[in-house]
Amino acid sequence: MHATGQMARHRVVVVGGGFGGLPACRLLGRKPVDVTLLDRRNHHLFQPLLYHVATGILSEGQIAVPIRQALHRRENVRVKLAEVTGFDLERRVVIAKPPVHDAVEVPYDSLIVAAGVGQSYFGHDEFALYAPGMKTIDDALELRRRIFGAFEGAELATDPDKREQWLTVVIVGAGPTGVELAGQVRELAVRSLRRNFRAFDPAAVRVVLLDAGKEPLAAFGDRLSGRASAMLEKLGVELRMGSRVTNVDAFGVDVETENGQERIAARTVVWAAGVQASPLAKMLADACGADTDRSGRVATLPYMTLPGHPEVFAVGDMVTLNNLPGVAEVAMQGSLHAANTIVRRLSGESTKPFRYRDLGTVASIGRFRAICSVRRLRLSGFPAWVVWLFVHLAFLNSFSNRLAAVWRWFWAMVGRTRHERIFSVTHTGGDLSAPESVREKIRASPFPAMQDTGAGPD
Amino acid sequence: MHATGQMARHRVVVVGGGFGGLPACRLLGRKPVDVTLLDRRNHHLFQPLLYHVATGILSEGQIAVPIRQALHRRENVRVKLAEVTGFDLERRVVIAKPPVHDAVEVPYDSLIVAAGVGQSYFGHDEFALYAPGMKTIDDALELRRRIFGAFEGAELATDPDKREQWLTVVIVGAGPTGVELAGQVRELAVRSLRRNFRAFDPAAVRVVLLDAGKEPLAAFGDRLSGRASAMLEKLGVELRMGSRVTNVDAFGVDVETENGQERIAARTVVWAAGVQASPLAKMLADACGADTDRSGRVATLPYMTLPGHPEVFAVGDMVTLNNLPGVAEVAMQGSLHAANTIVRRLSGESTKPFRYRDLGTVASIGRFRAICSVRRLRLSGFPAWVVWLFVHLAFLNSFSNRLAAVWRWFWAMVGRTRHERIFSVTHTGGDLSAPESVREKIRASPFPAMQDTGAGPD
Repeated sequence: MHATGQMARHRVVVVGGGFGGLPACRLLGRKPVDVTLLDRRNHHLFQPLLYHVATGILSEGQIAVPIRQALHRRENVRVKLAEVTGFDLERRVVIAKPPVHDAVEVPYDSLIVAAGVGQSYFGHDEFALYAPGMKTIDDALELRRRIFGAFEGAELATDPDKREQWLTVVIVGAGPTGVELAGQVRELAVRSLRRNFRAFDPAAVRVVLLDAGKEPLAAFGDRLSGRASAMLEKLGVELRMGSRVTNVDAFGVDVETENGQERIAARTVVWAAGVQASPLAKMLADACGADTDRSGRVATLPYMTLPGHPEVFAVGDMVTLNNLPGVAEVAMQGSLHAANTIVRRLSGESTKPFRYRDLGTVASIGRFRAICSVRRLRLSGFPAWVVWLFVHLAFLNSFSNRLAAVWRWFWAMVGRTRHERIFSVTHTGGDLSAPESVREKIRASPFPAMQDTGAGPD
Repeated sequence: MHATGQMARHRVVVVGGGFGGLPACRLLGRKPVDVTLLDRRNHHLFQPLLYHVATGILSEGQIAVPIRQALHRRENVRVKLAEVTGFDLERRVVIAKPPVHDAVEVPYDSLIVAAGVGQSYFGHDEFALYAPGMKTIDDALELRRRIFGAFEGAELATDPDKREQWLTVVIVGAGPTGVELAGQVRELAVRSLRRNFRAFDPAAVRVVLLDAGKEPLAAFGDRLSGRASAMLEKLGVELRMGSRVTNVDAFGVDVETENGQERIAARTVVWAAGVQASPLAKMLADACGADTDRSGRVATLPYMTLPGHPEVFAVGDMVTLNNLPGVAEVAMQGSLHAANTIVRRLSGESTKPFRYRDLGTVASIGRFRAICSVRRLRLSGFPAWVVWLFVHLAFLNSFSNRLAAVWRWFWAMVGRTRHERIFSVTHTGGDLSAPESVREKIRASPFPAMQDTGAGPD
């Protein structure tokens, strides 16, 4: 290594350009190391606002930034579009497949894996065909097509029963994603689509929010959950707690409650119920003998490293450690912790276990309404919404298009305008976090949400 | 008809919500008639700015508006998402297939058909697989994916020859679409992507603009064409006039010039060369014995009506009349003429043949540069660009998001920012104005522009 007269620089490979990968790259971008970031997508995505893309408020470019643009001033960082397919922890290489040539081995001295989670259908991946999730830009655009397409279907429907099916949106899962989406679909129908249709009043749209639990946004605690329920009901969202989905098809969902089975006819179903760690979590666990939990997340040591491999960090949603929640803030702090640990080791400093500093959580429910929990403070309604606004502006800040988003929000909230209502009737679905066989089927059917043939009721 | 004690209202059916259909609906929306607008897409599209979507400046929602939103205050206008598949001029019905149920007959008293044009590959529809056109939102998003994807391919390329192929963009056709796109791809590379890549300088991107004619933007006349050539060359666009494309594949184009055959290796090819009228033009011509021209456009009478069917109007790009150019302004004036003729007939007034009032034309060439021809006035450079800006703002005005577009333009032109650079690696192509068999192939191949297997050079 000294033969060239120069120390080879420490090589860091980062897998994933999300909240678990990007902060580490930004920090390491100012240090004397060589960084390679591998991601199968070209963009860093602000997932918490995907529902604004699905409901026509924001464009994809407003909630995502090209990863290489976010890192363009870090000249020691290379960004490569490639899907990671495996690891060889002994030889210290990552196996990556770029879309343009055969798989390659990427060697590392330190490795940070932050591959995130996908949607989980709890063993029923076939539901994905009828109930897309909301994890990627493709998911959000597919949902945009289905939501706005459903109103078109209702306008075209030839009898009242079919119209009602088109005008029913079922959202499975009453966590932040499900709650925020439910609220925005109602806002969309009641405010933005007013006078757009001749055969029906869009305010008649039925939004059913299903969850097996007792209350929506349960993680916020009883009091705030109760406030959230009240706000949702005021918005016209039908809350069905204690309901377990047993089947989904093109025409609705089957639900099991303590009172027995029920069928809800609906042409739009959204899955916001569960997550499953990236398969890379299991690969890492198998390679070093670590555990995985029910959601496939790998258990790390308190330093966020793998047992026997202090040079390998796993970060963010794909990790289970100290029961930390799967939120962006945990991933970001973990990412910086991993990068700092690498830097401290290189300069011979001591390292510390990861400690999460909880900054609180917030979820919005329609316009001007939210709930918010910061340490012991509990807020709801408009004050919580102001917190929501500032938190999201701070996040979007790194995308440098904050003002454009504020502009859109202003017109969507104070006015009624939603600019991103364009969908393609030929778009054939996207990355639905479903197995390839299911995705193939979605692609094969140009109008999965619109076809009126097959097993449906007359 | 008088049996009900009330006159049935005059029924107008409009086919197509573009520049030939929408103005008629807006005008008739204030008159005592019942209007039904049929379109297979949900949006009215400002096609002249599609290249801004393809090159990452604007989002789809900024150059398109939902048709029903544009007409929501016209309560006598119904908008239906349906593909028109035929006409029965004797029985006065349009046959339309909505995506959600079987085809229906839509009866009319007056009919306006404005179905526009698609891309023409001059009998080589197989080129569409490798050289998408730019007529629809899907086309623009597909091109965005290919253009930004090509830079990713260049970063990943393992040898200089392959990198050069990725860094070559061939644009076929030096009309306004081809010229504006060529200029913006160079601007994108030189300004917006600076410092984004480690393996090459994006300014090295080669943009080759091919045309069989003698000069770019030939319709503007010799002097302005010459100015356009000079501006394009200053921007670094390679102009290859007098070049006819004889073949396109995944790795480049074959070109025939007066000096013989040449091969240009390129991984991104865009087709902006020719148009073909909607098949509805031929259907109308066959139904009434009218002529069609080489591009399949139907010849109308001077009133924009069909021979023997004064109640049937054909309007816009799908029509050949008085050698009028295929521009938005002709379609808009024709649309208003048709609607006015219907109104005048109903009130017993006399009607007039269509007369086009030429307001001039303008084409931009990169930032701050354009050429412009208004009656006898010829402008080029910055003054022409100011005209371009005002004309496009006036058009976007109807979309009500003018200010947001100005904001984006400001940052794209004065700054370097392009927000809409997000593409999906799983997106499988769209409505490429190609026959279904070719589109199927595009869908089947998730990376048509990126795969490096098959017949390509090593």
